[in-house]
Amino acid sequence: MSRITPYSRQSADELSNTLSALETRYERLKRNNVPLDLTRGKPSDAQLDLSDALDGILQGNYESADGTDTRNYGGIRGLREARELGAELLGVTPDLVMAAGNSSLQLMHAAACFAHEQRWQNATPTMLCPVPGYDRHFTLCESLGLPMRSVTLQDDGPDMDQIEELVADDDSLGGIWCVPRFSNPTGTTYSNEVVARLAALPAKAAHKHFTVFWDNAYSVHALHTDAPALANVLDLANAAGTQDNLFLFASTSKITFAGSGVAFFGGSSTTLDELETFLSAATIGPDKVNQLRTVKFLKGRLTDHMAAHAAILKPKFDVVEDKLSTALKGLSVADWTTPDGGYFVSLNTLPGLAKSIIALAANAGVKLTAAGATWPGGIDPDDRNIRIAPSYPDPQELDIAMDVLVAAIQLASARYYKQLLDEHSARRDDPTPTRSQN
Amino acid sequence: MSRITPYSRQSADELSNTLSALETRYERLKRNNVPLDLTRGKPSDAQLDLSDALDGILQGNYESADGTDTRNYGGIRGLREARELGAELLGVTPDLVMAAGNSSLQLMHAAACFAHEQRWQNATPTMLCPVPGYDRHFTLCESLGLPMRSVTLQDDGPDMDQIEELVADDDSLGGIWCVPRFSNPTGTTYSNEVVARLAALPAKAAHKHFTVFWDNAYSVHALHTDAPALANVLDLANAAGTQDNLFLFASTSKITFAGSGVAFFGGSSTTLDELETFLSAATIGPDKVNQLRTVKFLKGRLTDHMAAHAAILKPKFDVVEDKLSTALKGLSVADWTTPDGGYFVSLNTLPGLAKSIIALAANAGVKLTAAGATWPGGIDPDDRNIRIAPSYPDPQELDIAMDVLVAAIQLASARYYKQLLDEHSARRDDPTPTRSQN
Repeated sequence: MSRITPYSRQSADELSNTLSALETRYERLKRNNVPLDLTRGKPSDAQLDLSDALDGILQGNYESADGTDTRNYGGIRGLREARELGAELLGVTPDLVMAAGNSSLQLMHAAACFAHEQRWQNATPTMLCPVPGYDRHFTLCESLGLPMRSVTLQDDGPDMDQIEELVADDDSLGGIWCVPRFSNPTGTTYSNEVVARLAALPAKAAHKHFTVFWDNAYSVHALHTDAPALANVLDLANAAGTQDNLFLFASTSKITFAGSGVAFFGGSSTTLDELETFLSAATIGPDKVNQLRTVKFLKGRLTDHMAAHAAILKPKFDVVEDKLSTALKGLSVADWTTPDGGYFVSLNTLPGLAKSIIALAANAGVKLTAAGATWPGGIDPDDRNIRIAPSYPDPQELDIAMDVLVAAIQLASARYYKQLLDEHSARRDDPTPTRSQN
Repeated sequence: MSRITPYSRQSADELSNTLSALETRYERLKRNNVPLDLTRGKPSDAQLDLSDALDGILQGNYESADGTDTRNYGGIRGLREARELGAELLGVTPDLVMAAGNSSLQLMHAAACFAHEQRWQNATPTMLCPVPGYDRHFTLCESLGLPMRSVTLQDDGPDMDQIEELVADDDSLGGIWCVPRFSNPTGTTYSNEVVARLAALPAKAAHKHFTVFWDNAYSVHALHTDAPALANVLDLANAAGTQDNLFLFASTSKITFAGSGVAFFGGSSTTLDELETFLSAATIGPDKVNQLRTVKFLKGRLTDHMAAHAAILKPKFDVVEDKLSTALKGLSVADWTTPDGGYFVSLNTLPGLAKSIIALAANAGVKLTAAGATWPGGIDPDDRNIRIAPSYPDPQELDIAMDVLVAAIQLASARYYKQLLDEHSARRDDPTPTRSQN
């Protein structure tokens, strides 16, 4: 689409013409109705294919390096070599890692239950949630009855001035969720200063067991080699004496198979001991065979493997960026992030338009994450954030989906300004309107 | 050992001689000190070997019958074909089954959390526990703060007269644990009448959401083809209108790999819907790749596969039976079960001797499940139940371990009668003893 005057500066006639053209284009896309799904951060088939060697990789040898028969019961902390892999992802030593089952969400849920029951003594402190954030953190809190309070996510991470002041004064604040590298959905990587201040935060908090939930889901998921690095939060916590108040999470779900990976927990030795005891009532142990497979497959080639993922993902992020830039730059109807890694692009529309844009896209076949999903309780106070998940569709499909999305954004935005103009005209025609009395 | 006079009928001299010989034999075994572990119901290497074809069985095809890419996220109820396998184990239709992760204990924990939070509205009703029973059911209750009350497990299952009377009068009783076929540790299979009465129990209970936890861990784990069958509890519950109050569990942990199986939940469609919603806050889905592997491996050959397990297990149960019979029959110092399936033999000693017998065995290198483990809270009121887990050691090791166990039983029992005799003599020598006053 050629560069045009921002809708906000178009005359009534210009805007009517624009709107008419946009309605026509949208109707055409709606008739095409190619069903596409950009709702979740799912790896594509091509990415999953990268790990197809997993099944069969053991070649009949189910024994771990230390002689453990992985086929049998036991070992809640997981295999030693799996913990070494987790240590690589989390930036800690293997003795501070638990290698668990196929779902880091399940591990976060278990760790939150542990914190709730043991650290917080069954109280339900409020969790701070940098917004926009990850919807499953929010539903997890809801399921445990933990209230949430939104805090601002800035370009360098959560707003630490705001947060430090809040937690120092209020002992009902019990923790914070963080996705520190390539944050979901903005792609933000926390700056060194923010990581240091988060690491030290529990020492400043009024709540004795203030806990930082460090969901490092995208720790090695850069789209290019110049992506920013992340400071080592556990080193910083050890320096601040807060290591018992830091829960680290990672997984191979977006490294090998999404539904069949290995989740990792990292923390102080005290926390690990307590968590292991807590979990022993609920499981005999994780799937060590799958841990062994995963390690055999990734050992010594994690960097190359992630580069192969990036080679598939980067062009998709480029499609998103190109489509948004080409169609929206200069229109002043949206801004969006250009991540260096992770799985999402976060887009902000004009205030109050996210829901209607998502509905327009859905009516033309393109499903997006529900409006508000990136906010606690599913309510975006400004109704403007849209999470774009470009990983799953193939590039051609993504191209179509983005055409639909930008058409929906343009149409809703033009309608918005048209309505503003119409209201303005109505007010001008009748500068002191008599309010209806009935 | 040749048939001898029961210790209880031996004269003081006879018993002194017996005891002396037993002490000597025990000291010899103690010096040998072969370290052996009969604590847990773990499959042996030979059993695990039966399933070594699992890894690699997919041959690069990760697609399920309905076209699901098992490698990706999603699907909390599990693969359709995995639910069909679960249906076979549970005796229900596949639409009433959820196929989950690698641990039925984890699934039981999740279902208990679901019952606790949703059905019981965060109250902590008392769970009825047939004894002797499965220790992990008890620790699970403890972890959730659910009190437990022991009820008697008879030869045909739990004492239903006792239970029906209890639950009709007392609305603080919220559920019951059952291992209905080849019960852990006695090997009991519940009779048709008991299954019918358990199925109808919630309708008779004062507690509105009285729930039967039906842990059918050994549903296909017969040691021989004449083992008793189990009535279909869900059919009976449907007839009684209690289907929402029945939670069924099974797994392939003791069919394929113990640490890497598939766990199953069965219940009414109402329960499944509610449980799925409950779980959706805590997981994105189970490991579907492993479900697909498990199904491909077992499909059409479950019966043969279980017969292969039985061929390995039966000789071990025979060793236990032979050793106990040969050494203890006629001594009146112990009775024990002769299971038709499952993983355990339950042995009762003379009252008050289980702990000391287990300690004697441990001092000679043989670890047994802790005394009391088969009772809620770890306290066997009569201190007489010992759980024998013969599956893991090879037959030669088991032979040695059983020699140690029967030696420990004989020694402790002879000491017991010797002490009785000595006390009797002391009383006879001084029929009206003056009690010490200090």
